Amino acid sequence: MKVQIVEVGPRDGLQNEKEHVSTAAKIQLIDKLVAAGLHRVEASSFVNPKWIPQLADAEEVLKGITWSSDVTYSALVPNVRGMERAKASGLTEIALFMSASETHNKKNINKTMEETFPVLREVAREALALGMRVRGYVSTVFGCPYEGAVPIDNSRRVTHELLEMGVFEVSLGDTIGVATPKQVREVMEKIVKDTATERLAGHFHDTRGTGLANVAAALDVGIRTFDSSIGGLGGCPYAPGAAGNISTEDLVYMLNGMDWDTGVNLERLLEAGAFIQEELGRELPSKVLKAHLAAVKA
Amino acid sequence: MKVQIVEVGPRDGLQNEKEHVSTAAKIQLIDKLVAAGLHRVEASSFVNPKWIPQLADAEEVLKGITWSSDVTYSALVPNVRGMERAKASGLTEIALFMSASETHNKKNINKTMEETFPVLREVAREALALGMRVRGYVSTVFGCPYEGAVPIDNSRRVTHELLEMGVFEVSLGDTIGVATPKQVREVMEKIVKDTATERLAGHFHDTRGTGLANVAAALDVGIRTFDSSIGGLGGCPYAPGAAGNISTEDLVYMLNGMDWDTGVNLERLLEAGAFIQEELGRELPSKVLKAHLAAVKA
Repeated sequence: MKVQIVEVGPRDGLQNEKEHVSTAAKIQLIDKLVAAGLHRVEASSFVNPKWIPQLADAEEVLKGITWSSDVTYSALVPNVRGMERAKASGLTEIALFMSASETHNKKNINKTMEETFPVLREVAREALALGMRVRGYVSTVFGCPYEGAVPIDNSRRVTHELLEMGVFEVSLGDTIGVATPKQVREVMEKIVKDTATERLAGHFHDTRGTGLANVAAALDVGIRTFDSSIGGLGGCPYAPGAAGNISTEDLVYMLNGMDWDTGVNLERLLEAGAFIQEELGRELPSKVLKAHLAAVKA
Repeated sequence: MKVQIVEVGPRDGLQNEKEHVSTAAKIQLIDKLVAAGLHRVEASSFVNPKWIPQLADAEEVLKGITWSSDVTYSALVPNVRGMERAKASGLTEIALFMSASETHNKKNINKTMEETFPVLREVAREALALGMRVRGYVSTVFGCPYEGAVPIDNSRRVTHELLEMGVFEVSLGDTIGVATPKQVREVMEKIVKDTATERLAGHFHDTRGTGLANVAAALDVGIRTFDSSIGGLGGCPYAPGAAGNISTEDLVYMLNGMDWDTGVNLERLLEAGAFIQEELGRELPSKVLKAHLAAVKA
């Protein structure tokens, strides 16, 4: 039985790291992730570099990597200007994003949710016309840093709109890492009522330690695609110092132990984790990486 | 619906910390844990101080704490000599321990499993005669650092023997933190065939990030008692630098979110976590503690 992992470390991870990471290191990281067997990698973002200076080198990164034919590389695209850059980059997949809560969407995108739909629709139309695959992210599905609880109907609505635009997969995000397995089950069960599980992905953050427990709950509901970040790279913009995305190493370890086939070689994945930890010069949150490096040292 | 938490930080946590912790700080920690609403606290160990010098002050700790009448304090007792110390301490509960794997038992207790049973039986007999409650730990249920996989029948056998001795509850331990939810479900389902779930507890380590996912799986099987350590205190003697017990803060956060009643006040618990982190002078693994301290700072 297969589970797909979407590696978001080079984007969601690195955009939340304060330490500067060189373009060369990003390129090496992506190539190492692919060498470990990851088939889907979110490589960077075409968001305005004014907002995310960490990923201003998106073009250089995508030029530098060794493109593998059985890997789908992707990047975040916020608007038509971003789409211009994506078009020139040679990518075959892009990702759209918006929030399920009004305040987070407004603060993040500077538009209301209603104003965001047509912008995304235009980007999707253009990407689809170019033969690209379009992924969608819904943020704050399990809680908003400003509003607290988010009605499930908001997430259903956004999911529905994204699918209507031609998005092939919607990633449901616990942006601030507040979800617990009970909530994941409840939310996912409601969303899979209108949407096939193959169209959904779980995007969990481990800010409160529940990330893998939430993955296990989503597996129970039938979700088979999960986003994760090498080393648990990144953090939480709403709680600087706290943990961000679930770690790819920890996710692969758990899935291996549960007899899910991810196609990822854990040993090689740990090399990628050790590499980027060394580059950043700080201990990353991945527990499997910690245990591995401790065992190597012992 | 209630879940019981057995706080093992002052014992399982501190016995694995290299940094010296003063007796006064241990006493303060235990009193803070009780103030947060924990009703079961493993306060120390009567293992020979030659082996665990970190807990050589068991008597002083137990003399110093403010005994609360609705809290059960406990300590580890390995043999009749330990039992003498426990008797003098005023405790109403002790805990026995052994492994489900021969090699770990031999290295840890210096006896075969068969040789261990009569020793524990004698301690249990004495404790029960004094009106004490006796808890039992089974180590390496989900994997052994020396033997790898451990047959479930070993754990069933040890569980059965402990219950025969009059133990009221058997805590099934993932000593090296290798378990995944699938294995937890499989092992627990087999063990609950002979043993009522009320007699069992889950003791998970988070060495590979799966700790809370394993708790959620054990909850599904009907387990309602879990061991955890404030701050995620402690570590893994087999992988120095790796994480140890699951964190009490993270456990309480997840259980709260799943509408389980633990009786614990998370705010006060975080005070206890912040206190012992400050004492140790190192960042503890608890993610909820990290997120809390980051939010306080922001």
